[in-house]
Amino acid sequence: MKAVRKIKPELGAELVDIEVPKIPDDWVLVKVRATSICGTDVHIYKWDDWAEKRIGEKRLPQTLGHEVAGEVVEVGKAVKRIKIGDYVSAETHIYDPSDLTALLGQLHVGEHMKILGVDCDGAFAEYFAIPESVCWINDKSIPPEFATVQEPLGNATYAVLGEDNDVAGKTMVITGDGPISLFAIGVARACGVAKIIHLGKYDFNMAIGKKMGADYQIWTNKTTPEERLKMVKELTDGNGVDIALEMTGSEDSILDCFKMVRRAGRVTAFGIPEKSPLPFGFDYSGGIVFKGCQIHGINGRKIFDTWYRVRNLLAGKRLDIRPVITHLFTLDEFAEGFKKMTERPRESAKVVLFPSREEMEKAKERLKIF
Amino acid sequence: MKAVRKIKPELGAELVDIEVPKIPDDWVLVKVRATSICGTDVHIYKWDDWAEKRIGEKRLPQTLGHEVAGEVVEVGKAVKRIKIGDYVSAETHIYDPSDLTALLGQLHVGEHMKILGVDCDGAFAEYFAIPESVCWINDKSIPPEFATVQEPLGNATYAVLGEDNDVAGKTMVITGDGPISLFAIGVARACGVAKIIHLGKYDFNMAIGKKMGADYQIWTNKTTPEERLKMVKELTDGNGVDIALEMTGSEDSILDCFKMVRRAGRVTAFGIPEKSPLPFGFDYSGGIVFKGCQIHGINGRKIFDTWYRVRNLLAGKRLDIRPVITHLFTLDEFAEGFKKMTERPRESAKVVLFPSREEMEKAKERLKIF
Amino acid sequence: MKAVRKIKPELGAELVDIEVPKIPDDWVLVKVRATSICGTDVHIYKWDDWAEKRIGEKRLPQTLGHEVAGEVVEVGKAVKRIKIGDYVSAETHIYDPSDLTALLGQLHVGEHMKILGVDCDGAFAEYFAIPESVCWINDKSIPPEFATVQEPLGNATYAVLGEDNDVAGKTMVITGDGPISLFAIGVARACGVAKIIHLGKYDFNMAIGKKMGADYQIWTNKTTPEERLKMVKELTDGNGVDIALEMTGSEDSILDCFKMVRRAGRVTAFGIPEKSPLPFGFDYSGGIVFKGCQIHGINGRKIFDTWYRVRNLLAGKRLDIRPVITHLFTLDEFAEGFKKMTERPRESAKVVLFPSREEMEKAKERLKIF
Amino acid sequence: MKAVRKIKPELGAELVDIEVPKIPDDWVLVKVRATSICGTDVHIYKWDDWAEKRIGEKRLPQTLGHEVAGEVVEVGKAVKRIKIGDYVSAETHIYDPSDLTALLGQLHVGEHMKILGVDCDGAFAEYFAIPESVCWINDKSIPPEFATVQEPLGNATYAVLGEDNDVAGKTMVITGDGPISLFAIGVARACGVAKIIHLGKYDFNMAIGKKMGADYQIWTNKTTPEERLKMVKELTDGNGVDIALEMTGSEDSILDCFKMVRRAGRVTAFGIPEKSPLPFGFDYSGGIVFKGCQIHGINGRKIFDTWYRVRNLLAGKRLDIRPVITHLFTLDEFAEGFKKMTERPRESAKVVLFPSREEMEKAKERLKIF
Repeated sequence: MKAVRKIKPELGAELVDIEVPKIPDDWVLVKVRATSICGTDVHIYKWDDWAEKRIGEKRLPQTLGHEVAGEVVEVGKAVKRIKIGDYVSAETHIYDPSDLTALLGQLHVGEHMKILGVDCDGAFAEYFAIPESVCWINDKSIPPEFATVQEPLGNATYAVLGEDNDVAGKTMVITGDGPISLFAIGVARACGVAKIIHLGKYDFNMAIGKKMGADYQIWTNKTTPEERLKMVKELTDGNGVDIALEMTGSEDSILDCFKMVRRAGRVTAFGIPEKSPLPFGFDYSGGIVFKGCQIHGINGRKIFDTWYRVRNLLAGKRLDIRPVITHLFTLDEFAEGFKKMTERPRESAKVVLFPSREEMEKAKERLKIF
Repeated sequence: MKAVRKIKPELGAELVDIEVPKIPDDWVLVKVRATSICGTDVHIYKWDDWAEKRIGEKRLPQTLGHEVAGEVVEVGKAVKRIKIGDYVSAETHIYDPSDLTALLGQLHVGEHMKILGVDCDGAFAEYFAIPESVCWINDKSIPPEFATVQEPLGNATYAVLGEDNDVAGKTMVITGDGPISLFAIGVARACGVAKIIHLGKYDFNMAIGKKMGADYQIWTNKTTPEERLKMVKELTDGNGVDIALEMTGSEDSILDCFKMVRRAGRVTAFGIPEKSPLPFGFDYSGGIVFKGCQIHGINGRKIFDTWYRVRNLLAGKRLDIRPVITHLFTLDEFAEGFKKMTERPRESAKVVLFPSREEMEKAKERLKIF
Repeated sequence: MKAVRKIKPELGAELVDIEVPKIPDDWVLVKVRATSICGTDVHIYKWDDWAEKRIGEKRLPQTLGHEVAGEVVEVGKAVKRIKIGDYVSAETHIYDPSDLTALLGQLHVGEHMKILGVDCDGAFAEYFAIPESVCWINDKSIPPEFATVQEPLGNATYAVLGEDNDVAGKTMVITGDGPISLFAIGVARACGVAKIIHLGKYDFNMAIGKKMGADYQIWTNKTTPEERLKMVKELTDGNGVDIALEMTGSEDSILDCFKMVRRAGRVTAFGIPEKSPLPFGFDYSGGIVFKGCQIHGINGRKIFDTWYRVRNLLAGKRLDIRPVITHLFTLDEFAEGFKKMTERPRESAKVVLFPSREEMEKAKERLKIF
Repeated sequence: MKAVRKIKPELGAELVDIEVPKIPDDWVLVKVRATSICGTDVHIYKWDDWAEKRIGEKRLPQTLGHEVAGEVVEVGKAVKRIKIGDYVSAETHIYDPSDLTALLGQLHVGEHMKILGVDCDGAFAEYFAIPESVCWINDKSIPPEFATVQEPLGNATYAVLGEDNDVAGKTMVITGDGPISLFAIGVARACGVAKIIHLGKYDFNMAIGKKMGADYQIWTNKTTPEERLKMVKELTDGNGVDIALEMTGSEDSILDCFKMVRRAGRVTAFGIPEKSPLPFGFDYSGGIVFKGCQIHGINGRKIFDTWYRVRNLLAGKRLDIRPVITHLFTLDEFAEGFKKMTERPRESAKVVLFPSREEMEKAKERLKIF
């Protein structure tokens, strides 16, 4: 089969022919209908410090990719829940059932979990293998180009809803103009967030943010932190927002969010700063203690609570994610996709890859007629 | 001033001239811009058993009404938060700050609370008086015909969101076709409920339910309980809904809801059965214990958490409530309003009354051009 | 091996010799160190209507019992988390991972779950088999006579803590004097419930309730409902309790609890009424709606959230459950145990059975020197 | 009357004779039975940078103190809930009812709240004045030397219970050996925290921590961060604790807590770092995002939810706080109290002051015979 693999510890990837994976007893084999590129894939593609440290040369070659939708074509003999023919997507966090978090139902943050496409072969291929435990059966009304992005859409949904799912009728700041921020705007809109203030900088993606439902937008490259704070305060009767979603990890955005959130409000900490510990001063007392705020660290998605909600929102047509899906390519054209993802100024959001050109053409039709 | 008052313990009410209320030090006086008829007003209008028992002949005469929006024209000297000129609505549950529930922040269910228009003079008048403590300052962008129905819309919002506000991406049954059920459909839709199944019987109001966003509708007068349960199960992969809102208090609806909710789901108990204790067998073990369900008893609205959310949803145009506002009359024409409210088959939802004909005419214009 | 089995559809059970169970690939085989008698076992022992209906003659013979602690002596080849030598107890609710509730983390109330000792052979034997998925590894500091009762203690813990675990500093009514009620008193005491009012009737068990930490006790057979309500109101400044645990399912107790709970309080619905639907009138509006109460239907225990807490409380010596463990017998003497469990007036709480007399003798020593 | 007042912007305070306060219509006047010294009082006593900035020379002279219990001797004419003769304590956060947080029930973190003894005259006097809105009626069984410390005990309770009150059966790290940390240990113990690991350094106060119920203690001045982390991991099967209470604001303690908390755990951010923004690198991604942690910013106490719980725990004798109350003085001897509070190595926890020597002598008797 064809697969997009990292062969050498350097920039790039290669489309190669490899064996279809053999599956262990409790895994399933999936024929890929659509797969999509995540920022994590870009890190691996570039082979930056994170990739070198997290994956390392020794494990290469390895297939990239973890956002995916496809059809189950084989099930291991210990598999019980999933059947051949099921239309599935993969939860990326392959949890270890022995972790305390797993025993307590917090499956997505286990100490010994493995990440699909990072700690093992991924889904940028004609087929991929996945343990049954992290297989999610898709609603048939959701086409593959939507089903594949349920994973990052799940990130966005968990980030918006937080641990307590309490957002209806509230005000929210959402930072960033990458695909997950843009999805988050749509989710927030669909879930009753009543005032959405979007902070970002690239015009192309800000326009998508507008389409997804942002009520107000602030260009971070054209404003000072003081101006931004003033604007947010003015939009909230001087209080600040009920909820601030930090989704970029940048210094500016982190500082913005902890200032813009109102007293007794909530900050979602989702973005990953480039450096850790933070190389800048964090206003711990002013941003958290005196305000009496709640900070929700959000990583991954709840398994499968978030998937269930995402599926329902998509199947119920509560959420139109088409504006975020900016580019479709065949799997062969993966390099085009990575190029789009890395261009600056940013002029893309989510890039979907299809092993089958025919499937891609159908997707193009569907994206017009939702 | 003119006021619609219950004079005698019998069917009806009268428009009479009375003194403008004198206000205690911590009350405010409000000039009414719009007021609307609630089912409670209908009970008092009819002077049924409940009215006789709850209010009694001795307290008459008394002004009806508690859903209202208007302008503050006078404030008592101990008033601090509210100012003359503020555009306000009234929380109906005038809580007693000494109640344990009030001390614990559960202001809406206090043992010694008084209900506006039930335990004291109401708002079907040119002016009405209200303690500052239950005064809510309206967003100026919300016109009086919407601002007056924030009270029942708040009921609907609290019923939909429950105690935990966790509804995004979930499935829901909503029973009844009175105005609060119809509002609830709109709130559910606005807040990300992903599948809304509406049960009711009157065609006129079912059509409103459709407009408010019901995905599926079941006529309870044309189906058996078994058929209804089967339909709901089929719409939810055999599981039942995540959340069932019981909003009528009828035997059929109560029995439906506890069957239709899925295991570990939630039932909102909002409707008031005519008789208490229930004259029919309630499936306590099957409906609550074995299913591991949560029942949320919902009465009134959270003060002012629910008001804040309702205001934001309306001001943010997340929710178009125009289909529910079916009739506008001047205060003089109140009897027409009550007639509409009591006709069966039901061909009305919310009836709004205006002391000023001019305000009413403006409202008619606005209702066309939301 | 020896096993206590239901052979015929009539009163009683027999100690017989049978084969040690063969285990499927994802099950484990456990050598029993201690096992204990639950009310469910008594139903099966008596072979009452419930047993006839739920189990039925066709499935006999079947081994009784599901409360247990023992050592893993064999693991199926698909087993990953559990190892030979692990000291384990069994979660009784063998969940089906395909159930929606299981996918959402509500493992304990699945539609297709099976109950150990009810839907398959149980643990009143020298060995028993159990799927790995419901195996809980015990803390080694917890002796077998405690470890075996973690299952009902988990019921009690979940009933006390409810869905939200919010009990610290609150007031509570606990009804009933069976072992789970008595455990609940201890858990409530250990978890900061600040005033515990215990309702029951049998002197022997009421004395245990006192030892477990009840602050006040009311004999239901010596008081009228009015008197009981008055006593509870007096103990709570006229408000009623924050939380009422209904743990018997009797008419009196259900009616008591919904009256004794304060406005905006919580009722745990745990007890199973003999008849369903209820053959008496339930005050749905007065007990739930007008009060704005939360009802938590509690069935089983959270898997494994409740187990984790129970383990920690026992291992941390926060909870002394010795008063509830009233009788120890060898497995051979099981009939003595059932006799104790069914005697009225009740003069027993939890009866523990040991396959090994030596283990039982050690337990007797340990029970003296906690 | 006698009052301990800050007269000049320099170290110290003076006992002076001043007029008994005149009260506004909605305030009450309280005769002090006991009052206690808080760290905030020490800041003002020392007149450090914080005091200079927060209070400033212009507002002097001002009476210190805000932890207090006494008897109401006069009520303003607009006062409704409180009566002459009521035995009360004061919530220090005098909230402004116009603040959004106040409208939403989050009374303790309002933008325009005033702090008793900081923004207005305090309670180190024979009489003090307080708005009715922040008056809490004490349980009569709680003696003044306990009632006065309910305020800091409320801090501790809110810090332990967090926003969700979910602590039963969990493991916890508590840092610091000041009075609030020591109270927190007692509260955690009373509320079912099953393993309490206490980090501090002063032997005298560590001994109090032990008495209050710490299971394990780690001396931060005798260990490296690595050693401490290792010890905590070993005590928690390698996972880290469910909940970490940061109560000192020191660099070491903040870094410790975010490392010691387990994945999906909770950190209470209560301590106030001396400098803000933090002058050291904070591991935002490792401590919050990747772990999926919840951070609860805790300031003050919930009004009056926390007071209710504290009262119940004390009145129900769930919590013996005597070890924390290390010194009693008369109000005249206030300087002795401040000396004790500032000595290092620390050899005191909570210092209580009594206007009446007789009351103090009675308190000494009571502290022996709880």
